[in-house]
Amino acid sequence: MIFRGKKLTVSIFGQSHAAAIGAVIDGLPSGFRIDREQLQAFLNRRAPGQGRLTTARKEADEPEFVSGLNGDMTCGAPVCAVIRNGDTRSRDYDAFRCVPRPSHADYPAIVKYGESYDIRGGGPFSGRLTAPVCAAGGIALQMLAERGVRIGAHIASVSNQTDRRFDPLRVSPADFDLIAANGFPTLSREAGEEMMAEIENARRAEDSVGGTVEAAAVGLPVGLGGPLFEGLESALAAACFAIPAVKGVEFGDGFFAALLRGSQHNDAYAMDGERVVTRTNHAGGLVGGMTTGMPLIFRVAFKPTPSIGMPQQSVNLEEGRETELTIRGRHDPCVVQRAVPVVEAMTALVLLDEILGA
Amino acid sequence: MIFRGKKLTVSIFGQSHAAAIGAVIDGLPSGFRIDREQLQAFLNRRAPGQGRLTTARKEADEPEFVSGLNGDMTCGAPVCAVIRNGDTRSRDYDAFRCVPRPSHADYPAIVKYGESYDIRGGGPFSGRLTAPVCAAGGIALQMLAERGVRIGAHIASVSNQTDRRFDPLRVSPADFDLIAANGFPTLSREAGEEMMAEIENARRAEDSVGGTVEAAAVGLPVGLGGPLFEGLESALAAACFAIPAVKGVEFGDGFFAALLRGSQHNDAYAMDGERVVTRTNHAGGLVGGMTTGMPLIFRVAFKPTPSIGMPQQSVNLEEGRETELTIRGRHDPCVVQRAVPVVEAMTALVLLDEILGA
Amino acid sequence: MIFRGKKLTVSIFGQSHAAAIGAVIDGLPSGFRIDREQLQAFLNRRAPGQGRLTTARKEADEPEFVSGLNGDMTCGAPVCAVIRNGDTRSRDYDAFRCVPRPSHADYPAIVKYGESYDIRGGGPFSGRLTAPVCAAGGIALQMLAERGVRIGAHIASVSNQTDRRFDPLRVSPADFDLIAANGFPTLSREAGEEMMAEIENARRAEDSVGGTVEAAAVGLPVGLGGPLFEGLESALAAACFAIPAVKGVEFGDGFFAALLRGSQHNDAYAMDGERVVTRTNHAGGLVGGMTTGMPLIFRVAFKPTPSIGMPQQSVNLEEGRETELTIRGRHDPCVVQRAVPVVEAMTALVLLDEILGA
Amino acid sequence: MIFRGKKLTVSIFGQSHAAAIGAVIDGLPSGFRIDREQLQAFLNRRAPGQGRLTTARKEADEPEFVSGLNGDMTCGAPVCAVIRNGDTRSRDYDAFRCVPRPSHADYPAIVKYGESYDIRGGGPFSGRLTAPVCAAGGIALQMLAERGVRIGAHIASVSNQTDRRFDPLRVSPADFDLIAANGFPTLSREAGEEMMAEIENARRAEDSVGGTVEAAAVGLPVGLGGPLFEGLESALAAACFAIPAVKGVEFGDGFFAALLRGSQHNDAYAMDGERVVTRTNHAGGLVGGMTTGMPLIFRVAFKPTPSIGMPQQSVNLEEGRETELTIRGRHDPCVVQRAVPVVEAMTALVLLDEILGA
Repeated sequence: MIFRGKKLTVSIFGQSHAAAIGAVIDGLPSGFRIDREQLQAFLNRRAPGQGRLTTARKEADEPEFVSGLNGDMTCGAPVCAVIRNGDTRSRDYDAFRCVPRPSHADYPAIVKYGESYDIRGGGPFSGRLTAPVCAAGGIALQMLAERGVRIGAHIASVSNQTDRRFDPLRVSPADFDLIAANGFPTLSREAGEEMMAEIENARRAEDSVGGTVEAAAVGLPVGLGGPLFEGLESALAAACFAIPAVKGVEFGDGFFAALLRGSQHNDAYAMDGERVVTRTNHAGGLVGGMTTGMPLIFRVAFKPTPSIGMPQQSVNLEEGRETELTIRGRHDPCVVQRAVPVVEAMTALVLLDEILGA
Repeated sequence: MIFRGKKLTVSIFGQSHAAAIGAVIDGLPSGFRIDREQLQAFLNRRAPGQGRLTTARKEADEPEFVSGLNGDMTCGAPVCAVIRNGDTRSRDYDAFRCVPRPSHADYPAIVKYGESYDIRGGGPFSGRLTAPVCAAGGIALQMLAERGVRIGAHIASVSNQTDRRFDPLRVSPADFDLIAANGFPTLSREAGEEMMAEIENARRAEDSVGGTVEAAAVGLPVGLGGPLFEGLESALAAACFAIPAVKGVEFGDGFFAALLRGSQHNDAYAMDGERVVTRTNHAGGLVGGMTTGMPLIFRVAFKPTPSIGMPQQSVNLEEGRETELTIRGRHDPCVVQRAVPVVEAMTALVLLDEILGA
Repeated sequence: MIFRGKKLTVSIFGQSHAAAIGAVIDGLPSGFRIDREQLQAFLNRRAPGQGRLTTARKEADEPEFVSGLNGDMTCGAPVCAVIRNGDTRSRDYDAFRCVPRPSHADYPAIVKYGESYDIRGGGPFSGRLTAPVCAAGGIALQMLAERGVRIGAHIASVSNQTDRRFDPLRVSPADFDLIAANGFPTLSREAGEEMMAEIENARRAEDSVGGTVEAAAVGLPVGLGGPLFEGLESALAAACFAIPAVKGVEFGDGFFAALLRGSQHNDAYAMDGERVVTRTNHAGGLVGGMTTGMPLIFRVAFKPTPSIGMPQQSVNLEEGRETELTIRGRHDPCVVQRAVPVVEAMTALVLLDEILGA
Repeated sequence: MIFRGKKLTVSIFGQSHAAAIGAVIDGLPSGFRIDREQLQAFLNRRAPGQGRLTTARKEADEPEFVSGLNGDMTCGAPVCAVIRNGDTRSRDYDAFRCVPRPSHADYPAIVKYGESYDIRGGGPFSGRLTAPVCAAGGIALQMLAERGVRIGAHIASVSNQTDRRFDPLRVSPADFDLIAANGFPTLSREAGEEMMAEIENARRAEDSVGGTVEAAAVGLPVGLGGPLFEGLESALAAACFAIPAVKGVEFGDGFFAALLRGSQHNDAYAMDGERVVTRTNHAGGLVGGMTTGMPLIFRVAFKPTPSIGMPQQSVNLEEGRETELTIRGRHDPCVVQRAVPVVEAMTALVLLDEILGA
């Protein structure tokens, strides 16, 4: 479970119900002062237990930095963040080893890892493993901010309720601040309320909903990335698809670009003072696998949470017969809200790595 | 320009107008007999000069295997395939160093690489570099077939002309054969004709069109991939986004999944004799980053070719002023047709690597 | 601080006086039961505080496995071992930031990492970081034993006191058991006593001594490794030179081979029943970068501990002038004894990785 | 057969008797003008056919740079150098598939790769594969020289004939020029003549001799490398052990250091104007895995060429019985002379990579 960048290697460890989860971040520059309070605030955006829309599991998600810091300064040694697990109800999961939950990792994981697979809480496939990703990404966000790069994301849609899009030419840190101020992470407060209603409806129906996250990064230098496998899209998409429940990633106009003609999609160049800019930004800030200096824009699609309360058809793996399954326990009816900082964290890891490795 | 898999490393070299392009494929098992004729037929699907819908540049795309083979057998040493370039008109490209083409790699590449950047033909950013990818992927396809894994792709759409989708439960090598038999790579011959008309319309208008490719793989074992950064989606998406002009990748229902409820999206398990299957395949054969044993299905969005004949706005980088640009030369009005085998090749590299490294 | 193998990635974290040190071991097969007692016994061989010949720092070196295990079974998720630091006297080290200790990492580390470098206890350069290496390697040793591969090492020399060498044709697990039974890790108990006297002499003189470790592995399959950069010597040497204080590594006859003629050094082949063997083993079990199936033999040279009690010449980095330095504190007069299990651990990581990745 | 550095990846391809051998060098900075003449002169030092002391096989070793250059300038795309093979007598090698040559790669390679292994000329295990290493390393040497880093090596010994050592405090490019001027690469011309006589004696006896190479690098910044697996010794040793026939690598005093006391081995610090230096350089310019800024010094031991004309004992693999073997054909009685530039090339790759990746 390793993010292998050019300069950064982040080794994530843990299972949902292990003693701890965490991350070892190798390759960070030394001499950077981490703002712990800001980092914890970032982690809290992902943490559960923030109201009835998210799982009732209560965890502080407070990383202990057992190495890599001298006071609050990175010292050149790998930074290891350990987050203790607690409040786990492992008995809830015993049955799934025999009767796998539909659209969960249970079945392929049992085939892959065999009898010793730790199915409790979804093992290493749990969304809980995104907590250490956020610990690493939260540090990356701070390092990027120092370099003038800012990243933000919002919920672009929940079911068919949509937020307005980032303006691909003018998205700015002010937008990110607005999203933060709104609590529920949307640009439009009204859209956010409709989404919350949608999620609450699903929860009441013991069902779940999917959605999309839109992310942006501004302040990037021109020319990050490169040809073929060095393309920045590859690195960003690989990081985003590493987030559980992600089913699609698109940059700029994305799939919509496939409907356009070149004359509609091409972004003409212009001068903004001494700076080369584009008059439109259909590309989402990326051509030829490289940053153009315009805002980087992309969207990530999340499937609905597979854990739903309704009875479902499954199979009994031991007996080789079909059976019905009803999942009990605590689950988010929608993962998208908590996924917003995870998308930001992944984006930050990739962009910081590209900048450090350029 | 390196594909870094678990067992396979494919180092792609070349620029569009260099003496040669090629690939070094390291990590292939020894003792496999390559069917050269079949490989060349595969490469021909990508090669240019197949009619007025593709660029007039004529190149045989015939790789010379200078190492790694003992007769036609892999011998354990890295396989190096060299494809000589020819029929290049480098003068066409001189001007773009000063006035970059919109939505091309020109501008960020000049910033990134400086004056010595080889802009001719798009340098290493050219679609031509997908020829060695296909040489490597074509070998991977043969090795996968021997292991019972078959891969196929078709054009799912050009502009708003759509082919029918793969049946996510029943897609089979027969579908891939049908696509091959159709010449223009669609499941529905009629849809293909409409797409060709659409491309021809764009060509006449000195414009271009985008489209999507849908790919499938069958015969996969259960449990390829893994948690977080080990997810198969990450590897496949990284490979697909490495293809020039790709703007989006989605698995299974993809972005559409974000509109569904869990009760609609979950794939219930069932028994098919002794085999565990799912009753639906919204997941596209992947849950928890792992294969389920059901057909792997994903779609890739391509933007319209940025090289269009119409005058466009750009800037003169030397003089720092805006200017108009008209691109002449030979360009595909749509890259999607030739991209189909490239998507197959990328998929094959990733899947063979996962199987070898499992 | 990452061991990057073909299948295994071991990410080591920590500084000598950080809250903890540890390792994340990614890529271990699932379903292996770790013998905790045996592992602790292995770690104890490296741990300090075993008598007056080693540093007085007392640490249990008891790893807590916070993830990756289901009971005592590997479960497929990364194994994270955390070893808490304690009994640290950080004040001892304050002065070295200004006046670096000769032949220690202090000076280049200060230049490399800057002011925030954590110099306490030698930071990440401390021999203490070999404890998590042994935690990882100790697991690898158990997994190798299950596959019929056994590894052992002994002190081949301390100063000019030498143990007898492994018999390169007949070294066996019985030798490893003999070394273990001897307490001080030599084949000859008498040689061990002379070495101990030598170390004690150095200690009394507030000086230190170097030495060599000889390692062997038996039960290896033929053909591990490969040509050029894939050679097993490269992987083993890289791992051994990662151990602090190592200055030389040689395989088989090593530097002595440079004095021989081909007719003296070549190992003739013979049949041992159905098995191909060599009549001599000057090669140390490796030709062409690959295992021959004969015992793998190599030696590792350790410099004398740089921390000595005598006054030494150094410089004051702040004032840019020469000065005298006297080092106080607790240090081993010889690292070789405690290095023996570290060499075994490194060897085990490399060999297990090669076998898993073959 | 891949050198995997921090920034540089060099993918070597070919077998001794394949159509070609070569290297793809990925990650070189763009905008560097390669001095082709100087590069060819460097390659000629390794090339065969330079007198009766080396194999009679005649090969120009002239790389064709098929990609990565714009004129003579690196352009950011991977540099691919192809060296055509010629003058191969493949029939000489047919018998070794059945009766492997002692101390050659034949036997383990046949076990590893099976029937399709390309045994001709030693396949990918041939010393011939060091030609593309020198093409890549020769470019690295030029890039390092531009950065003020100079590398040189000489034969330190052939059998028991020894050259004088580099002065570890004062070795300089003048020494490297002296070695070059001597033709046979030694510091002392007399020592060189004795070595040549030794090699000639072995040749007449249809035997072979081993030897050692000593290498130095000057002008290095302080702090290259790092703790544990990041140590520069690990990278250098891995690269040197990748050279066929290498059996030992030692830095600074190396194995001799194991005989010293700390008070004898420690390198006291001193000021040389504003620069921190050491009064001695037992460490060979490396402490804590990092450069100290003092000359980097290390030695590499080569075994005697295994191809000797005398009859040897081997086995018939097909018939499972012992047999006698007499090797005919063209072989160097000593590889050390031609290995000198290979050691320089390997050193250059590692050091350039560390500097680019720092």
